[in-house]
Amino acid sequence: MTRSEIRELFAVLERPEVISLAGGNTDTSIVAHRIEECVHATLARNSAEALGYGIGEGHARLRERLVELMSLEGITAQPHQLVVTDGAQQALELLAKIFCEPGDLIITEAPTYVGALGAFDSFQADVRTVATDGEGVIPEALVERLEAIGAEGRRAKFLYLVPTFQNPSGITLAAERRGEIISICRQRNVLIVEDNPYAQVRFEGDPVAPLRSLTDDGIIYLGTLSKVFSPGMRVGWVLAPETIRERLVLAKEAADLCSSPFTQLVAAEYLGSGHVPDDLEMVRKVYKERRDAMLDALDAYFPAGTTTRPPEGGLFLWVTLPAPIDTKAMRARALEGGVAYVSGTAFHPDKRDGRRSMRLNFSYPSLADIEEGMHRLGAVAHEELDFARSLDDSINDGKA
Amino acid sequence: MTRSEIRELFAVLERPEVISLAGGNTDTSIVAHRIEECVHATLARNSAEALGYGIGEGHARLRERLVELMSLEGITAQPHQLVVTDGAQQALELLAKIFCEPGDLIITEAPTYVGALGAFDSFQADVRTVATDGEGVIPEALVERLEAIGAEGRRAKFLYLVPTFQNPSGITLAAERRGEIISICRQRNVLIVEDNPYAQVRFEGDPVAPLRSLTDDGIIYLGTLSKVFSPGMRVGWVLAPETIRERLVLAKEAADLCSSPFTQLVAAEYLGSGHVPDDLEMVRKVYKERRDAMLDALDAYFPAGTTTRPPEGGLFLWVTLPAPIDTKAMRARALEGGVAYVSGTAFHPDKRDGRRSMRLNFSYPSLADIEEGMHRLGAVAHEELDFARSLDDSINDGKA
Repeated sequence: MTRSEIRELFAVLERPEVISLAGGNTDTSIVAHRIEECVHATLARNSAEALGYGIGEGHARLRERLVELMSLEGITAQPHQLVVTDGAQQALELLAKIFCEPGDLIITEAPTYVGALGAFDSFQADVRTVATDGEGVIPEALVERLEAIGAEGRRAKFLYLVPTFQNPSGITLAAERRGEIISICRQRNVLIVEDNPYAQVRFEGDPVAPLRSLTDDGIIYLGTLSKVFSPGMRVGWVLAPETIRERLVLAKEAADLCSSPFTQLVAAEYLGSGHVPDDLEMVRKVYKERRDAMLDALDAYFPAGTTTRPPEGGLFLWVTLPAPIDTKAMRARALEGGVAYVSGTAFHPDKRDGRRSMRLNFSYPSLADIEEGMHRLGAVAHEELDFARSLDDSINDGKA
Repeated sequence: MTRSEIRELFAVLERPEVISLAGGNTDTSIVAHRIEECVHATLARNSAEALGYGIGEGHARLRERLVELMSLEGITAQPHQLVVTDGAQQALELLAKIFCEPGDLIITEAPTYVGALGAFDSFQADVRTVATDGEGVIPEALVERLEAIGAEGRRAKFLYLVPTFQNPSGITLAAERRGEIISICRQRNVLIVEDNPYAQVRFEGDPVAPLRSLTDDGIIYLGTLSKVFSPGMRVGWVLAPETIRERLVLAKEAADLCSSPFTQLVAAEYLGSGHVPDDLEMVRKVYKERRDAMLDALDAYFPAGTTTRPPEGGLFLWVTLPAPIDTKAMRARALEGGVAYVSGTAFHPDKRDGRRSMRLNFSYPSLADIEEGMHRLGAVAHEELDFARSLDDSINDGKA
């Protein structure tokens, strides 16, 4: 997203008549009462620690809880291997900082997480993409891409992946491809950055083991509590091989000395409360209903030729509209029509791509807002299509 | 400070028998009960906002309160001119990021804030120093430095100053020099970064107007709530000219999307509570007592020839020991003796300087810990001096 697009989005959020399907917020009302309890417990027991400076790598108590959380996904790690960051976004920034001189290569999926592109661009990295299909990154395409880079006499700093419920596409890298991707990268000495914010938000289907659970070699793993706790607490972390972890701690200290010990201790309190499994159950139930409502509305209100791939989890639907609709051009008219979304172009390193797609968030809006927002958006898409076709007709008439 | 020194320091803090005069923490017990109230009010009234994502430049309500806070120091600003950061440390990081290519020049005082050196080093800036005396930066020395840089065909990106109760020296840039420093920099198109964390923590003497209150041209002003609210909340801000502010917002979004809306709203609640003047009064009273106790203990326990300059505010005493004591070498023995401090070398861009000095914190330790810690440290200094002199004697004996 460009600056003006973000600005526009936030301006929208201040207009209550506009329904936003644009952000990446979760429904924090599910956990708000727990957070209140955890805040009070933290201030009652650990006020001085919570309100003072902490260490760069993060509070030991939080890191212990995060190790437990990762073990639920089959990841074996030790607290001393972690660095706590302000959301996974800061981890991306710090990785770009320690790895990238201007022009250095990073490989991503396309589309990919807009915030990762923002962090990589800010260090002037050269982002190349690897082809994907409905099963995620195509191993042969990855080999080809790495060989092409090798033929330039260069080497990629890392491959950045969101393997499960990818943002924005919702696609999960197939279990049977994961080992192959790992060995392709290992053979060529390319690190993998595995960004895994959504795996715990699975509504259906079998869990797929994270890459980091298959090997601890050559994987930098990023986690966040933004999806299962609260984005506003800004708690994320990196699990990295020792030499990289050390450099990350130094970079973290230069960046902001430490993450807030207060929010870290509140997060540790929450993770240790025993409520996480129940809360996650509720999150999954609520988001599944909302996803289903959004899929139903897509069927009901959008033009023929609109496609999507129902994701088994996560927060987003990635929708592609029939040609010649341009979702970036349509955005302004959608806002006039009272609904906001993010155009597909934001998620492509080459901003000319993704013009027919849009990312729609179903985790934050209520069922009523999903119904009404999709109704509005479908109407705008219909008008857009009718207008484009009438233009085509008049061009054809002109020719005749 | 090197990584190993920081590590050592934090290891120390886990040994309760060691008294730390090393950190920069405040005594948060003074405001802890207020923070508890503000947290409660924030979650009761603004839960969804506090727990969701916010905008890169920071919450409007906080920025309004920060403008009011700055107006107490005579600074005129508008909320839209501010960017909220994770402490002033993040502001230093973001400024280094947007201004510095490797090798670019920054001018600082020497000694100067260790965290600023960390941020500047992390972007491989070339840090040059300007001479100071008891009144702060010497205008003639600044002219000389800038001319020498000009003679190299180069230009400094900015002059970094902590004009009031400088960390670590405690020195305040004299009021009558401030206009001169501003005009020297303006004539040569050099920006000034004014880092002002301590001005509100003045125990005695007349307030000196911040540089930013004298002009809004060419000054990037950094503030923090770490000293008057809580370091652990990580709330700082930048007030900058518009073109720089825009670049800072983009850099902030790439760095971590936004500062925690939760801690921002708690901070806004606190600033709006009406309790700030009373709490500041208490902070000043408590820290003045501790400063006085530290000065008394310095007189009572330290070797003849030890010097300091009693600061009129802030958190630190900057102490210089008689030759040939090396405070860096002495640190390990002080730890054995049960007391921690930061060696003067940490605050010098050239780490060979500052070997006879040390920074002692009086804001965090209790009066009893100050008395006992200074007693221990004085004893270590005496031993160190006796040992060094006996070495000298034996060398002289050897020569005879």
